[in-house]
Amino acid sequence: MSDPGARSLPEVARVGVLASGGGTNLAALIEATTAQGSPARIVVVGADRPRAGALQRARAAQIPTFVVLKRDHPDRRGFDRALVEQLRAHHVEWVCLAGFMKRIGPPMLDAFPSRILNIHPALLPAFPGLDGQGQAHRHGVRIAGCTVHLVDAGTDTGPIVAQGAVPVLQGDTEHNLQQRILRMEHTIYPAALRWAVEGRLTVEDRRVHIDLPEGEAPWWFDPTP
Amino acid sequence: MSDPGARSLPEVARVGVLASGGGTNLAALIEATTAQGSPARIVVVGADRPRAGALQRARAAQIPTFVVLKRDHPDRRGFDRALVEQLRAHHVEWVCLAGFMKRIGPPMLDAFPSRILNIHPALLPAFPGLDGQGQAHRHGVRIAGCTVHLVDAGTDTGPIVAQGAVPVLQGDTEHNLQQRILRMEHTIYPAALRWAVEGRLTVEDRRVHIDLPEGEAPWWFDPTP
Repeated sequence: MSDPGARSLPEVARVGVLASGGGTNLAALIEATTAQGSPARIVVVGADRPRAGALQRARAAQIPTFVVLKRDHPDRRGFDRALVEQLRAHHVEWVCLAGFMKRIGPPMLDAFPSRILNIHPALLPAFPGLDGQGQAHRHGVRIAGCTVHLVDAGTDTGPIVAQGAVPVLQGDTEHNLQQRILRMEHTIYPAALRWAVEGRLTVEDRRVHIDLPEGEAPWWFDPTP
Repeated sequence: MSDPGARSLPEVARVGVLASGGGTNLAALIEATTAQGSPARIVVVGADRPRAGALQRARAAQIPTFVVLKRDHPDRRGFDRALVEQLRAHHVEWVCLAGFMKRIGPPMLDAFPSRILNIHPALLPAFPGLDGQGQAHRHGVRIAGCTVHLVDAGTDTGPIVAQGAVPVLQGDTEHNLQQRILRMEHTIYPAALRWAVEGRLTVEDRRVHIDLPEGEAPWWFDPTP
């Protein structure tokens, strides 16, 4: 406020990302949120593994990072509280899980009520839990995809914000299918985050209503092999 | 054989359809199989309710019908055996369930091994059982659809042949969504039946491989509202 040349930060939502792995979804979110006019900014990236590739990606983008280790806490509650503390220290308003392999417990859910998003590599409620893509491949479905949802106390059970579908081709390996779904994840997660931070989501029962911008829709289908 | 002018019937697969309700899928199958060059012909339609609309549709298309009532049989096995008997009397090779509301038991599965198809109004394995469309609507998914699968002893658990996806629009009622899925059902069921009777399906574990005709695919997506 005292610097008239500064970007009007108060209008940009502060987002924290939690990851356990390489963080390709983090990369997609960084790209989207650093674009001109983005309503969100990633202000911190946390991981539960010091070697998570996501931390390197964050550092490369000059985003602060933190690590919270399960073994440093007597129970899940303590671990969750440590996450909250770190996110609050960075004044985070919204949290995006990007391949974060720990269940989110009450301390996090209470600190960020209906403000934690997750992406899952399956058309939920089909194939929740680990390896959604592999589950879909082995089940022999013809249409697979990914889902962005609000996080609740269950495993991949929260209200659905956006979904993207892709075909399963007959020659597909699990790896091919995973890559095709991943491309779709990189499309739908930034869109869902944008709608969320713009205050466009309302949840009734478990259904999410989105006050969508003109010409946008919360579903995608990409038939590209 | 003795009549050189007769259509070469032995090359046309004999299909029996079982239904409990109005039979709009039956109508789609009749339309597809009466088209010139169809590799399948519906030779009989059976129902477990004398007033099933499907029976009227069949009669209108001059297809023989039968009714097997649960109450005429002491147990499920007896009911299933009566179905087999009727279908065999018409030399049926393939069976299509079209809104048939009874579980298929061992006598039917043994009589028509991997030769019974069903259509379910959801992207299985999501929302099996009754009212797949309503389940999807209430769950708040963004992408719904339908599945043609080979019937096994479970409820909507058999190997998947074809799937078609449709979007769920935010203003949708359950009825709207049901109609959109139904249109897709009428596309994918005839295609799946055609591949089946042409001997194009092979099942490995629970995955179905289709020796697809050039330019065809076992998945569909129709974004039309």
